[in-house]
Amino acid sequence: MNETIKTILNHRSIRSFEDKKLTDEQIETIVKSAQAAATSSFVQAYTIIGVTDRDKKEKLAEAAGHQRYVVENGHFFVFCLDLHRHELAAEMEGLDKKDIIESIESTEMFMVGCIDAALAAENAVNAAESMGLGICFIGALRNNLNEVTKILKTPDRVIPLFGLCVGYPAKITGQKQRLPFENIYHKEEYIQDDEVLKDQLKQYNNDIIDYYKERTGGRRADRWTEQMAQKVSHPTRMYMKDFLKNKGLPLN
Amino acid sequence: MNETIKTILNHRSIRSFEDKKLTDEQIETIVKSAQAAATSSFVQAYTIIGVTDRDKKEKLAEAAGHQRYVVENGHFFVFCLDLHRHELAAEMEGLDKKDIIESIESTEMFMVGCIDAALAAENAVNAAESMGLGICFIGALRNNLNEVTKILKTPDRVIPLFGLCVGYPAKITGQKQRLPFENIYHKEEYIQDDEVLKDQLKQYNNDIIDYYKERTGGRRADRWTEQMAQKVSHPTRMYMKDFLKNKGLPLN
Repeated sequence: MNETIKTILNHRSIRSFEDKKLTDEQIETIVKSAQAAATSSFVQAYTIIGVTDRDKKEKLAEAAGHQRYVVENGHFFVFCLDLHRHELAAEMEGLDKKDIIESIESTEMFMVGCIDAALAAENAVNAAESMGLGICFIGALRNNLNEVTKILKTPDRVIPLFGLCVGYPAKITGQKQRLPFENIYHKEEYIQDDEVLKDQLKQYNNDIIDYYKERTGGRRADRWTEQMAQKVSHPTRMYMKDFLKNKGLPLN
Repeated sequence: MNETIKTILNHRSIRSFEDKKLTDEQIETIVKSAQAAATSSFVQAYTIIGVTDRDKKEKLAEAAGHQRYVVENGHFFVFCLDLHRHELAAEMEGLDKKDIIESIESTEMFMVGCIDAALAAENAVNAAESMGLGICFIGALRNNLNEVTKILKTPDRVIPLFGLCVGYPAKITGQKQRLPFENIYHKEEYIQDDEVLKDQLKQYNNDIIDYYKERTGGRRADRWTEQMAQKVSHPTRMYMKDFLKNKGLPLN
């Protein structure tokens, strides 16, 4: 197994960092690694904002749900979907707003932006972890994007998708076992038999119960299906559709 | 610079592969690397379909736009957003469909699925490239998802997002220079000055013109802004919104 695959398979989220900032060189390596990712039709539909200002980090943490690691880390990146850049490009080429609005406001371009930004982010993660740094994604930035877009002064058609804390790990956590290989990977076509899929999930539940029991000395014994049922029966961030529309992305 | 960062920075799309299949062990390493990626609230909202059947690959290539490398590669993966698994999980926990529909059908859950799948895919890319393999993303699978979902027999709430050709490179292509660092990476907040951003894009246009001139012996001299203006003034895949709705994802 080579070093890259070892790094990838060793991933875990780190939520406690040493009080040591990343150097400019480290930040540049991480961002350039992000940029090296594939991008749909060369659109590069994302922007990365690096936040070091303490006051700004405190405000972001407050918007996201008061996670201390949003403030206390080596560097805080925010990955944004960015279609504003393409509006500028079109303007530079003499196009009128009305010529581009159908495309820019489409569901397809939104998908392109989400996927482009995430491909870039995972490269940033692998680069950071290969340097001995730890990371934690902050999807909770999406809890309050009205506030986050104000703090980061993003224009319309730029949507902060998630944060990424990077830093020197102060506490290494355990790895959570993923879904069974057979449940994630299907050969030739999607397995249609829900009973087979459910059996795989039952097997997985047992693995996850063991994980929690061991980690908590028997106090927790959650099933994965229980966690997921809990999650999907409590809708979150239902403001998203209207928020995106207000920011110039009605997803037509 | 470590091996992982070298691998990442050396990425380029490969569109011509040797006639040599990936081994089961290689496929397993790639999929397990994908699974090691971070996932929002542990939802793991994706499924990977591996296609080797020649007839099926021909049909997928036809749906995507007749790219030969969709058929001729070492292995063809399709990364799908998958919220069907969470419906099953909720059913196993005794929930009724009506208890979960608001969450499952939300824009937020769709974003989670797109991001989860792309994070996993970029790990697959890094694992494959670290083993000396080449890759090419096939976003064009989204040209005709009605056909693709039939070929892959995906149920409702499973959306093929993109394909990934992996194989032994037969022809190594050049790297296309990315947007200027300062255009992608903003410090503390989004740079509000569009004139500054436009100047950066002008500088980038010159770099890209040089790239095309060199690669084509002077026959092509495209600007990046020209390519983007062309793209956003020609809307594509405008069926997406209705398609997603028909597949149980109205993005509420």
